[in-house]
Amino acid sequence: MTLVIDCHGHYTTAPAPHNDWRDAQKAAFKAGAAVPAYPQVSDDLIRETIESNQLRLVRERGADMTIFSPRASAMAHHVGDASVSLEWAQRCNDLIARVCTLYPETFIGVCQLPQSPTSDLAKSVRELERCVLELGFVGCNLNPDPGGGHFQHPPLTDAYWYPFYEKMVELDVPAMIHVSGSCNPCMHATGAYYIAADTIAFMQLIEGDLFRDFPTLRLIIPHGGGAAPYHWGRYRGLADMLKKPALDTHVMRNVYFDTCVYHQRGIDLLTDVIDHRNILFGSEMVGAVRGIDPETGHFFDDTKRYIDALDLSPEARHAIFEGNARRVFPRLDAKLRERGL
Amino acid sequence: MTLVIDCHGHYTTAPAPHNDWRDAQKAAFKAGAAVPAYPQVSDDLIRETIESNQLRLVRERGADMTIFSPRASAMAHHVGDASVSLEWAQRCNDLIARVCTLYPETFIGVCQLPQSPTSDLAKSVRELERCVLELGFVGCNLNPDPGGGHFQHPPLTDAYWYPFYEKMVELDVPAMIHVSGSCNPCMHATGAYYIAADTIAFMQLIEGDLFRDFPTLRLIIPHGGGAAPYHWGRYRGLADMLKKPALDTHVMRNVYFDTCVYHQRGIDLLTDVIDHRNILFGSEMVGAVRGIDPETGHFFDDTKRYIDALDLSPEARHAIFEGNARRVFPRLDAKLRERGL
Repeated sequence: MTLVIDCHGHYTTAPAPHNDWRDAQKAAFKAGAAVPAYPQVSDDLIRETIESNQLRLVRERGADMTIFSPRASAMAHHVGDASVSLEWAQRCNDLIARVCTLYPETFIGVCQLPQSPTSDLAKSVRELERCVLELGFVGCNLNPDPGGGHFQHPPLTDAYWYPFYEKMVELDVPAMIHVSGSCNPCMHATGAYYIAADTIAFMQLIEGDLFRDFPTLRLIIPHGGGAAPYHWGRYRGLADMLKKPALDTHVMRNVYFDTCVYHQRGIDLLTDVIDHRNILFGSEMVGAVRGIDPETGHFFDDTKRYIDALDLSPEARHAIFEGNARRVFPRLDAKLRERGL
Repeated sequence: MTLVIDCHGHYTTAPAPHNDWRDAQKAAFKAGAAVPAYPQVSDDLIRETIESNQLRLVRERGADMTIFSPRASAMAHHVGDASVSLEWAQRCNDLIARVCTLYPETFIGVCQLPQSPTSDLAKSVRELERCVLELGFVGCNLNPDPGGGHFQHPPLTDAYWYPFYEKMVELDVPAMIHVSGSCNPCMHATGAYYIAADTIAFMQLIEGDLFRDFPTLRLIIPHGGGAAPYHWGRYRGLADMLKKPALDTHVMRNVYFDTCVYHQRGIDLLTDVIDHRNILFGSEMVGAVRGIDPETGHFFDDTKRYIDALDLSPEARHAIFEGNARRVFPRLDAKLRERGL
């Protein structure tokens, strides 16, 4: 039996009081006023938002678990300052922890980080530690462009990020490289910014030698790796021009792509071009694209259907749905073992 | 018989005196000194750079013509000021015109524009007119991010660009949407910036209604349309969420992708997902990726091989190699007709 583990789910349907508090927090920052108290959010309200959305869809679509994180587009690291970002990240992560406590068989947490454009990563290191050691989270979402759409941060291979990678390695947790909402009017968040950032991140990893310094670091590039699999020849050729080793040893021992690609032909290419050991099932639910594809009659983001339609070996299928997630998220694997799975 | 027309070739091998003058021009700007005189560049030197590179490769690979423009990564619209950009664009375009005069059967010109980050497009309008009406060019490369890597320009659907589109429509020439070199250390030019910019441009077109205002405007998004074909489901779904018409009527009457995708599986996906009427043969020669693919023994950018390997109808093959280019570049079509082709 294979568990179907969705590595990429966001709490996009968080309870209204939580979102209202965020609005109040931003308004208070703007006004220079005190941050209002965080509201009561009842278990019932959390259950309602989860059971009518993510949990329903997980069940309807035949998945077993979701690796669950706060809404990516709302991380908005560019809003306010470092302390605004810290409190927002903590509130979001605490909320995820409550979901995971209410539904321990279905949801396991991945944290938002309190990044801020002009700050170092010290607060993020501490929040990662808190989420992993105290809340039982198994990974994090690392924003490569906390400025929100102008790509003014150093590449992911720069020493700026190293203290955070050190903590990731110590805790043995991976990061999904995931930007947040776009504050750039030329860049639509889910249609332009996400995919561009994924592609840029992958090329940064090719240009650098990050995994020489961190041989056990594991990074997930979401949305099917941005443009990378489609342009795989370009990336193999550029690695060669840059006198780097071939991609399979240079980056693909440490980099994984999810299956958030919303049509069959895209998934076909992904699974043809990329080794199945580097692919993690993901849907980005409930997320970027919510409609039904008129060409198939099914939801665009019902990505399990595309994988089910492939002619995969049992080994490859198991790897994509379960094995790779357990290998990339060892703390998830440990929890599943505790449950006898 | 089908002509094989490569819609995307750059003069990346321009003669050394031309490149040296550019260095001197930049140095003069920095020093506040007078720009040195443009050097003599002999026809023999031009022949040497073309015959040992582009012309040799065109012949070896079985193409007939290249729609030829200045080196994209060297346009560098962010360098100097508007007058630096203007003179550099004029010099580059004049050089392309000389290549086209020396080899009128093989090369036809597409111009670089004198864009500059803080300028409007008045100079670009005039240079387009000069290149088309005086030099016989058939199109242009329009840089959506003349700032060089931080995406600070308005989207392509913004009124900022309209005066230029009006001139394009009047002259009946298309534009390839093509950024230049990256001055952003987090973004490799050909591996990250180009592909990200292509993707961002496509999403801008989905978000807007540009072709309602310019129903005959034609834009080519190079490098296989960035990530768009791989994420076609995402883009179809986002158009739906944004309450736009389906992509085939909303943008694909006016938008074309080239075949600068450097592996067979990428070209397979491109031609499976995108209507053959929207695909133009292109190679980006001599360009981004110059090596030999160890998996095939052939050059990565020998894109004709990938298309030859497809099971295309004669009609689709003709469209991709010739018909679409003649339709998108009517001034090319007119010149070919003059030659009895």
